[in-house]
Amino acid sequence: MERTTITWVDGHVETIDQTVLPELRLLRLSTVDEFVDAIKRLVIRGAPLLGAAGALGVALAAAVSGRVGYDPEQVRRDAELIASARPTAVNLRWGVEQVLPFVDEGADAVLVAALDLAAADVTANKQLGRRGADFLREQLGDRPLALHTHCNAGALACVGWGTALGVVRSLQEDGLVRMVFADETRPLFQGSRITATELAELGLPHRVVVDGAGAGLIARGMVDAVVVGADRIAANGDVANKVGTYPLALAAARAGVPFVVAAPESTLDPATPEGAAIEIEERDPDEVLVVGGRRMAPAGTGAVNPAFDVTPADLVTAIVTERRLIRPALGERPS
Amino acid sequence: MERTTITWVDGHVETIDQTVLPELRLLRLSTVDEFVDAIKRLVIRGAPLLGAAGALGVALAAAVSGRVGYDPEQVRRDAELIASARPTAVNLRWGVEQVLPFVDEGADAVLVAALDLAAADVTANKQLGRRGADFLREQLGDRPLALHTHCNAGALACVGWGTALGVVRSLQEDGLVRMVFADETRPLFQGSRITATELAELGLPHRVVVDGAGAGLIARGMVDAVVVGADRIAANGDVANKVGTYPLALAAARAGVPFVVAAPESTLDPATPEGAAIEIEERDPDEVLVVGGRRMAPAGTGAVNPAFDVTPADLVTAIVTERRLIRPALGERPS
Repeated sequence: MERTTITWVDGHVETIDQTVLPELRLLRLSTVDEFVDAIKRLVIRGAPLLGAAGALGVALAAAVSGRVGYDPEQVRRDAELIASARPTAVNLRWGVEQVLPFVDEGADAVLVAALDLAAADVTANKQLGRRGADFLREQLGDRPLALHTHCNAGALACVGWGTALGVVRSLQEDGLVRMVFADETRPLFQGSRITATELAELGLPHRVVVDGAGAGLIARGMVDAVVVGADRIAANGDVANKVGTYPLALAAARAGVPFVVAAPESTLDPATPEGAAIEIEERDPDEVLVVGGRRMAPAGTGAVNPAFDVTPADLVTAIVTERRLIRPALGERPS
Repeated sequence: MERTTITWVDGHVETIDQTVLPELRLLRLSTVDEFVDAIKRLVIRGAPLLGAAGALGVALAAAVSGRVGYDPEQVRRDAELIASARPTAVNLRWGVEQVLPFVDEGADAVLVAALDLAAADVTANKQLGRRGADFLREQLGDRPLALHTHCNAGALACVGWGTALGVVRSLQEDGLVRMVFADETRPLFQGSRITATELAELGLPHRVVVDGAGAGLIARGMVDAVVVGADRIAANGDVANKVGTYPLALAAARAGVPFVVAAPESTLDPATPEGAAIEIEERDPDEVLVVGGRRMAPAGTGAVNPAFDVTPADLVTAIVTERRLIRPALGERPS
């Protein structure tokens, strides 16, 4: 059965707590504060999922407001809190903005719009996944492929199905996946904990590697294509994604291996001209320094912990969305 | 006081257990089996230190043999066990071979040769460190620099002083270190545990970053130069070093940032024509999958765990040894 990562149940949002995966723990979010906290703590993460979450968050704010006398202004203030919970992920604000026009119509109207948006995510993923798979078959021929991915861009990063893993799943339908290498994705191990869990459930042959190993595997000819998601795509085709993506793109370009970004149209941000204009979220140093409750570095040592990096457009072989294929390395621009 | 990482005390080898740093625990190795195990488990690690350890390991084998009736053939068999404990690190076998000619002269002769070799390591490091610092000042001008390093190539990777950190220490003597970024170096966190400990003791401003973040910091202009050690350098200038080094070299080349390899002459291997001929040690998948005693990936998931990667010569701005400066990116070859 296809899992739904986020749902609406009796006036609250139910979601999977992604900080404790591979343990499966459902979480019930009943207030706007709980909701914003869940986004900041990465209980809810993944660009497409954040889009749906933004919309459902406003639905939650509206439902809460409706219980004490519906106040559209309060709902809009809550919506802004939700939209700004994570600055780099453009989908979150996009999702919020999709349902804002319904706020004046009341809580039920917001909820219906949010649920429509969530359902559309799965459809979009299947479309972009197929487009990516067809592109790779065209580029590499119909042969079993070894794919490399970073962080998690699977069903759990979305409402369902997945973006980068959506491409892998479409290739799996075609019987053309030989191996998936998943970077463990420090500091929060989304690759080991989340991507590997999804790959295991899908019955796909896979191996986890440390983030530093990806470039070397690509150089040694062990990888046929790199497929990743995105958190924001600038108008010129520069791609912000989880920190550690850029070195894979450098290695892929040097090895002549396709580097494919799979993302819904909502990840494209025409208002951002290029990667240099993307604000890179800086997270808590303890995510780096404390591992499994144990401090790995001496007491006085600090860390720099950027959540994202930017891959320049010239290294991006293709961006696949639910609507189109864009080839930034050949000079095509998303907007 | 300058720390000595490996010493000879009353017929056994005393060393720092590098698997539990930043906790400082001395370890006494009294048999060849214990010694080989310590090398395999990375209790003793770091290319220059492995050179000295190889020599002292043979001295230990000779001392043990001497206690039951000295047998040169047995010592040579033990020496081969030690030399082959880690296949990629050329220094280990080199250190063993430096003292083999003394085996027929008895245990004391082997020990004297091994202690001479260990003392020479510190001198060589200070020479190559100064050469690297002078090169960077010449390239970048006399200004405070932000340096990026990977894994540990400090005093604890050597008998003392350090190779990559030897360069940093020479720059520190010149008052020209603004910041040192240290990759944490998964899977074994040598950057967080060991390099950060050394940088803190030296009073150098420093920050730990996850391995995936290095390339992005370089692209954002936060790094003036990358300085790393090496485990083996091929005749053409290709450099094998801890996995995760190659992506830093790719990012440095793209950003126009010098990429400097600091290593003693014993790391140069004329018998290896190029990087593709270097055997890459594959280590236990559990180093990747189990973190702080907790399994991060689902039960059925495996890992690929190469200990090293190879940086092609054209990305290496300079190799500094105790004897010379080699510029592979300009076509100069070590042998």
